[in-house]
Amino acid sequence: MSHSSTIHESLTAVFQVRRFPDIIPAGQEDISNSGPATRRHPGSEHTELGVLLWQRAMDPQVGTWSLPGGRLRDNEDLDTSARRQLAEKVDVQQLMHLEQLSLFSDPHRVPGDRRIASTYLGLIPLTADPQLPSDTRWHPVSALPHMSFDHGTVVEYARTRLAAKLSYTNIAFALAPPRFTMSTLREIYCAALGYEVDTTNLQRVLSRRTVITPTGATAPPGKAGGRPAALYRFTDSELRVTDEFAALRPRT
Amino acid sequence: MSHSSTIHESLTAVFQVRRFPDIIPAGQEDISNSGPATRRHPGSEHTELGVLLWQRAMDPQVGTWSLPGGRLRDNEDLDTSARRQLAEKVDVQQLMHLEQLSLFSDPHRVPGDRRIASTYLGLIPLTADPQLPSDTRWHPVSALPHMSFDHGTVVEYARTRLAAKLSYTNIAFALAPPRFTMSTLREIYCAALGYEVDTTNLQRVLSRRTVITPTGATAPPGKAGGRPAALYRFTDSELRVTDEFAALRPRT
Repeated sequence: MSHSSTIHESLTAVFQVRRFPDIIPAGQEDISNSGPATRRHPGSEHTELGVLLWQRAMDPQVGTWSLPGGRLRDNEDLDTSARRQLAEKVDVQQLMHLEQLSLFSDPHRVPGDRRIASTYLGLIPLTADPQLPSDTRWHPVSALPHMSFDHGTVVEYARTRLAAKLSYTNIAFALAPPRFTMSTLREIYCAALGYEVDTTNLQRVLSRRTVITPTGATAPPGKAGGRPAALYRFTDSELRVTDEFAALRPRT
Repeated sequence: MSHSSTIHESLTAVFQVRRFPDIIPAGQEDISNSGPATRRHPGSEHTELGVLLWQRAMDPQVGTWSLPGGRLRDNEDLDTSARRQLAEKVDVQQLMHLEQLSLFSDPHRVPGDRRIASTYLGLIPLTADPQLPSDTRWHPVSALPHMSFDHGTVVEYARTRLAAKLSYTNIAFALAPPRFTMSTLREIYCAALGYEVDTTNLQRVLSRRTVITPTGATAPPGKAGGRPAALYRFTDSELRVTDEFAALRPRT
């Protein structure tokens, strides 16, 4: 059978937990029977998982938003290619974690020449604030703009993988600042998982598995006063499975 | 820059825990000061993880052993392609699990045209005995034959991934028979992990996480007599992470 040209590309979903302005959904700006408690105030913000997207200035699909990525070169492997493409959109020094996800190989995923996409998950910690080029912006994952091709599906896939890995690895090290209070860590988990988690449970589980370690220091009290909060750090800064069956490990 | 032809292929490491004849390593057949306890007897066997390989009848690398796989067609995605290629070497009905591993994309991984390999892990249960074509054979992973290209590295990668997943998922369901004693399950874990595990610990951990469920039935006693052993089954027959942080799940 004939083989037309096939292009290999990388596509990376770079996530960061960020503050985003609250947006009142269209059509709900003035629901007359909603009480003051349900109204959003201009200038108010919330914390959410953000994804880095750039807007296409040319066809195909001009104006839609794309994941960073591009074509594999003859002289590089896919990991090298993904990092090179990413560096055009964000300071890769700020990337704490980058891992291969799945291949998107549907013959019809993009029009024209076949493109096989090797997808990646990239993570940037809460406190980093990388410079972005003018075509690039953070978007909250709950309100993605009009996405190019199947890039919205890639974001969903990456987000699902991140949530799964939060449950059995220490991957949150790459979303957290170097030192943090449990309250901050809870905010990161809630944003990345998309649902509420309990601070006490989180601390208990992560401490028992030695995923996090107390630093001995405390954070200065906030405006409301109260007891100073203990500061923690992640025990490791490389990905590891945090709950291998201890009983199954070889005896050393 | 110019782009020469690039081929995309699938390569699958199909594993099964099997009985293999004991082999006395060359040069150790007759060590005069080894006692009778260390001598292997002809006809003796051991249980080990096996990998399905076929021997190349043509160049390049005629005579070396390869993983099942081959070139992606224009009209199929990679998962479909991997299954199609596998079907030439083994009855895919017997495959209990197939998952994408990593991409092997080093520009120089094979001579000639560039080939990007999408690698897969496939698992066949202990009691299956699929028919094989004449060029195909099971090999113990501890004694691989002369392997083609980087296929030996792919086997190592797949084996490492399997061992990791045994520790935090129920993936052993795809290596075990439908019903099994703890003694059989221990043998499967030992073979797949490559080190000894304790039956009592294994049963305790897997039961607590509801990875396995007692069937209520027992196996007939062996030749040595003794108490009949309880039969278990895997609770699920699809891959799942067996130790998500219960505390972090959304309340239902």
